Order: sequence, then structure tokens, then C-alpha cells
Amino acid sequence: MRIAIVGCGQLSRMLALAGLPLGIKFSFIKDTPNQDTSCVDGLGPVVPLVQDWQTTENLQALYNELGNPDCITVEKEQVDINLLRALKDFCPLSPNAEAVFACQHRKNEKELLSRLAIPTSPWHYCVTAAKAMEDLSLPLVVKSCSDGYDGKNQWILKTPADVENFDNLDTQDYIIEAWIKYDREISLVSARGNNGEIKHYELTENTHKNGILVKSIAPATALTPAMSAKAHSYMESLMTDMNYVGVMAMECFVVGDELIINELAPRVHNSGHWTQMGSVTCQFENHVRAIAHLPLGSTQRLGEVGMINLIGTEAPTFSLLTPTSKLYWYNKSVRPGRKLGHVNFLSDSLETLQKEMAIFMQDDAYTATCPK
Amino acid sequence: MRIAIVGCGQLSRMLALAGLPLGIKFSFIKDTPNQDTSCVDGLGPVVPLVQDWQTTENLQALYNELGNPDCITVEKEQVDINLLRALKDFCPLSPNAEAVFACQHRKNEKELLSRLAIPTSPWHYCVTAAKAMEDLSLPLVVKSCSDGYDGKNQWILKTPADVENFDNLDTQDYIIEAWIKYDREISLVSARGNNGEIKHYELTENTHKNGILVKSIAPATALTPAMSAKAHSYMESLMTDMNYVGVMAMECFVVGDELIINELAPRVHNSGHWTQMGSVTCQFENHVRAIAHLPLGSTQRLGEVGMINLIGTEAPTFSLLTPTSKLYWYNKSVRPGRKLGHVNFLSDSLETLQKEMAIFMQDDAYTATCPK
Repeated sequence: MRIAIVGCGQLSRMLALAGLPLGIKFSFIKDTPNQDTSCVDGLGPVVPLVQDWQTTENLQALYNELGNPDCITVEKEQVDINLLRALKDFCPLSPNAEAVFACQHRKNEKELLSRLAIPTSPWHYCVTAAKAMEDLSLPLVVKSCSDGYDGKNQWILKTPADVENFDNLDTQDYIIEAWIKYDREISLVSARGNNGEIKHYELTENTHKNGILVKSIAPATALTPAMSAKAHSYMESLMTDMNYVGVMAMECFVVGDELIINELAPRVHNSGHWTQMGSVTCQFENHVRAIAHLPLGSTQRLGEVGMINLIGTEAPTFSLLTPTSKLYWYNKSVRPGRKLGHVNFLSDSLETLQKEMAIFMQDDAYTATCPK
Repeated sequence: MRIAIVGCGQLSRMLALAGLPLGIKFSFIKDTPNQDTSCVDGLGPVVPLVQDWQTTENLQALYNELGNPDCITVEKEQVDINLLRALKDFCPLSPNAEAVFACQHRKNEKELLSRLAIPTSPWHYCVTAAKAMEDLSLPLVVKSCSDGYDGKNQWILKTPADVENFDNLDTQDYIIEAWIKYDREISLVSARGNNGEIKHYELTENTHKNGILVKSIAPATALTPAMSAKAHSYMESLMTDMNYVGVMAMECFVVGDELIINELAPRVHNSGHWTQMGSVTCQFENHVRAIAHLPLGSTQRLGEVGMINLIGTEAPTFSLLTPTSKLYWYNKSVRPGRKLGHVNFLSDSLETLQKEMAIFMQDDAYTATCPK
């Protein structure tokens, strides 16, 4: 069996590393010219997309060079939707192109959430900031409709002066939404099999700095069973509605005992990286199992578990490894602010886990380059 | 960091798959001409040993083609000891050549065990069968001193007629030992770090058919703490004596509450494959950590855990996967009697584990090809 993945980043890398043990082979589509492919070097053929990939001959050649995969998937939502729609004529595409389409554009995503009566922050599409201020009141968040991961292409309007300067922002396709005064950020990562079976990982508590995920802990603390049930039911509505196959993530703001859905990701997700060490089956293997039409693996948690991203770190932090932590290094070229790896932690007690994570985050090898 | 491994089989494959996530690179020495390298295809450069590898130029070329590794290890004990002794001039070799030497020849191994007062079955080297029968009494086991894994090159002498026919056996370098009437077979897999720290995995109970491991369950049942302590102390004596760095396995016969050591393996071991699913850190990652001079990972067990080898199976048994089992397929060409993959099982209860393993072993996809 062979799986092709659109994209050559760390998520493709970890999908392949989770699938290779099963004897599954991989190949990768380099779908943008300047893409760094070092993450997937050596894990399977990397096929660059030619400029006129749309012709029947070129599509067939692409499929052949990928090693005639049995299914195709994505590691990111920012993919040319026409490419996905064309590829699905060759073999199953999971998740399906329309599910990716719904999550790759913030207006589509908002409309999907609203249609399924899933709470999200109130929003307007492409209105003037003045109009948004009138309807939603300050502060506001402007988000470019696409290319908005890791806090990129987002602007906060706090004051009337910000609103007046809004026209200078570098986007023409955007939403403006009310700023949510949330208590905490959590996320849900779930897998849906080809047979419609859904398995949820436990809800994860996330800490961001400058829009980039820095740290996750699972399970998220102080959640009532009703809140978990709510999150599960939102995810189940979404997955069933989209006939989704694979792993998907849902980022939520916690406001009191309410959940406001901030963002969907039609793919494995950074806030699910802890599952590599802390779950019977990790999100990457479950995505592979789902799209390969194999039974999903158990999402049972194995202990108190956490993850710290290595952002801008110059080299693998080998020296910081402990008996209960594991290093995942992506082999990317180093750039400040870039996610270059992560470390997972597993413990029998939350107290020990937090202590170990705090020691890690205070070490020079971490603080020298990673976000304070 | 790069690690080179002598050998291209499934153990090299699983070492690489455990080390790649850390950002460690691998390369492999194809040290015999007919070696099947499909297990490691795509996981790093495979460098065939040239016939006159002994020259300084060829050794330097080998080291360069391997990508100038930071350390070298082995996936098997049957390696030309002179190659290991030569390679250690280029970078650290772990385990050291003399440790491999001690385990690759049954006479050396027996002498090592005896010197450390570790119980093993009484034995003679290269005596006539008649002499062995006189000293040790029937039944006897003749074992070729090398190339003896998976029950190969072993012969049982049960009757005086067998003893008379002994001269026809195809070996000239052998030991003859007393046949041990054991209750059960267990094994211990342990890791020793560069700093001398030793971590043990829990003792594993093994079932063999025709000399090949078919099934393991951990922890081994009905062992007293005294028996575990004995196994640990034997292993610690061995590792310390040999200044061993890496993972090592010790196969034992259980006779009442005594342990008789049958065999040592200076490498990761089939009876430790369950650690991939059932332990915080698997034997493969701990071998990598040890030889890369990183702190050892926790060997804590995560539940009741078992392993079934896929022997001669025609294709990956995808259809038999369950939420609490994982498939490991080696990508080898299929041959009857060949180890082609394994399946690990994890459960909260021994009863459930045994039930799930029994269902697997009764399925047509397993019984059609695997040993009855």
C-alpha cells in the first residue's frame, strides 16, 4: 500500500514515520516551488508540481511518479483545491476535497459552523472596519481568509484609531470577528474511520505565544463532563456532515462553561503531538489507519502528558532528554520563529509532569532560542 | 548525528524507525553478498562490503560512504569480528567488538557465563557424542558454535542410535550440552547507558515452535521477586563485565524457581518487540539512546502486553488489526518459515489480552501461513 501526501512539512514527516512500520509506503507532492522538503527527505519520493499540472498528461505523470498511491491525503489546508479535485479521479482522497475546501477559507468555515449551530465568534465578511465596530464593538480581530496559520495574517483592532487605519492592512479577502475574552484555549483532535466510526482524543489545553503554539497539556484541566460532551458533539456534527475520513482538529475558546469554536484543521494538528507518547495510538497512525480503511486504533491516554514546541531552536535538544521525555526533530533548516521540533512528556502525576516541563522551559538550551 | 548499523534486516529497520524521529540519520552495511536489504530500503544509504574491505583505503571509503557516522552498532551477533575491530578505529562501536565476540560463539558465551558464575546447562566443546553421553547423559543437544539463531544448526540426540549417527552431522565447531527439562522459557531485555546506568524491561514469557519465537507475553507470569532479582543480577554482571553499551537480551529456562541461561544476544531482540507498544520507551529507541550517549528512556510497562510473530505470512495482516493491536511489517520478500512482521497487543487485563491474541491466532489470515 502507498499513501501520497500533499505537502513536505513536519506533519507529512510524522505521518510517514507512523505509517512506515505497518509496511505502508509514502510519497510527497511538493506543491509550492520554494517548499523546504528536508522534513521528508529519505521517507519516499518527493514529486514537485509542474507549473501546468492541470493537463491530463501531467496529472497522470504526477500520479505515476508518486508511485500510483492507493490514497492521497493532505498535511495542510492551504492546498490548491483544484489540485485536490483533480487528484480524486485517480484514487480516494481523504479527507475529501470539499472538507478541505470548507476549512481552508475562513468564510466557508464560519458558514459551516453556523449552519451546524456550532458556536463561533460573531463575524462579518469583507465589511469596513467601521461597520464591524458598529455591529460587534471593539476589540476586533481581522483575519485573512486564507494563509492564516500560526497567527500569521491576523490583526487586532483595539482602538478607533486602529479602525481608521484598517485600510492599510495587507488583505482584501478577510473576515472581521469580535475578540473573544476567553479563559483558556483548548482543542479536540478526533479521527473518523471509513466506516463512520469516530474516536476522540482527550481535550488538550494549549498555550500560545505570538500566535504560535508553545505548549500543550492533556487532559485539559477543570473541564466538566458536559463541556467535553459538547466538544464531542460539535466534532461529530462536523465530521458526519462533511463525510470526513481521517484526523481533524477543532480549536476552542473556553468562556465560563461555554466553548466557542475558533478554528478547524482538516488534518493532524500540533496540539495532538502528545498522542505520540501519551496514547495507545497516535494521531498520525490513526490518520493513516483511517485513510487506508483500517480499523482505528485506541485513543486511550497512557498518563498525564504534555508537549513543548521547539521554535527556532538551533539543534536537537539531546541534552535535555529525560527518561520520561521524547524528542521529535524535523530536520528542517533553522530559522527564528520556525517550528523545528517538539518534546513530549509522560508522567503518572500532573504535578510531576508540570515540574518536568517547567525545568525544560527554564533550561538555557531552550530559552536561548525558544519563545520566553 | 548519524548511526551506522551492520546488517540490513528487520532489527536494523526498527532501530532506524525508532531513531529517525529524533532527527538521527542512519546507514547500513550489507555485510554478506546475498543479504536482502528490502527491510531498510529508503531508510538510509546501504553500503555493500567489498571483498577486500580490509585495506586502509577501502575501510576509509566504507566509512565515508556510510556518511561518516558518529557511532556504529550491530543488529546481529554473526558479524565478522575483524570488521568490527577495524571499524572501531573510525568512531565508537557499541556494543564493543569484544562483547559481540563473546556472544557470537557458543564456547565463548558458555565460558563467559561460567566465569561470572551464571547458571547454564552443563556442556562440552567438540567432544564425541559418546563422551558427552557418558558425562551428561541423554538427551543431549548439539549446537553449532555459530550461525545458530532461530533453532538453526541444532540437533537433539535422544537415543544411543542418535549418538552413533552423530558423526554425520554437518558441523565441526560445536558444543554438546545437557537437555534442560524446563518449565517455561523467559527472557530479559535490558539497556545499559554510556554512563553505566542499567534499565531492565520486565521479564517476558516466550513460546517457540520449531525453534522460532512465535509469541511473547509480558510480564512473564508466576515469577517470584527473587527470580526477577536473580535475572537482573545476572544481566548486570554480564553488562558490567563486558562494559556493554546498548540493549542486550538473555534467554532463560525456568526450572522450578531456578533460571538456567540458554543464550545471550548482544542486540535488540525479538522477545523485546512488545516494548514498541507496551513500554514508555521501546528497546529500539533505548538502544539508539544508549549508543548515542543520551539518557536512557523509561522502561516502564504500560499494560498487559503481547507479541505474535508473522512467520511466512503472505501479506500484511491489515484485516486483523484491532483498536489495541499494532502491525509491524518488515517489507521482506515472502518465504515460508521467514519472520516477516509481528503484531503487538496491549490491554488492561491479562484475560482480555489472551483472548485477543487467541482470536488472532485462530484467524485464517494467520493460520494459513504461520506455524500451527
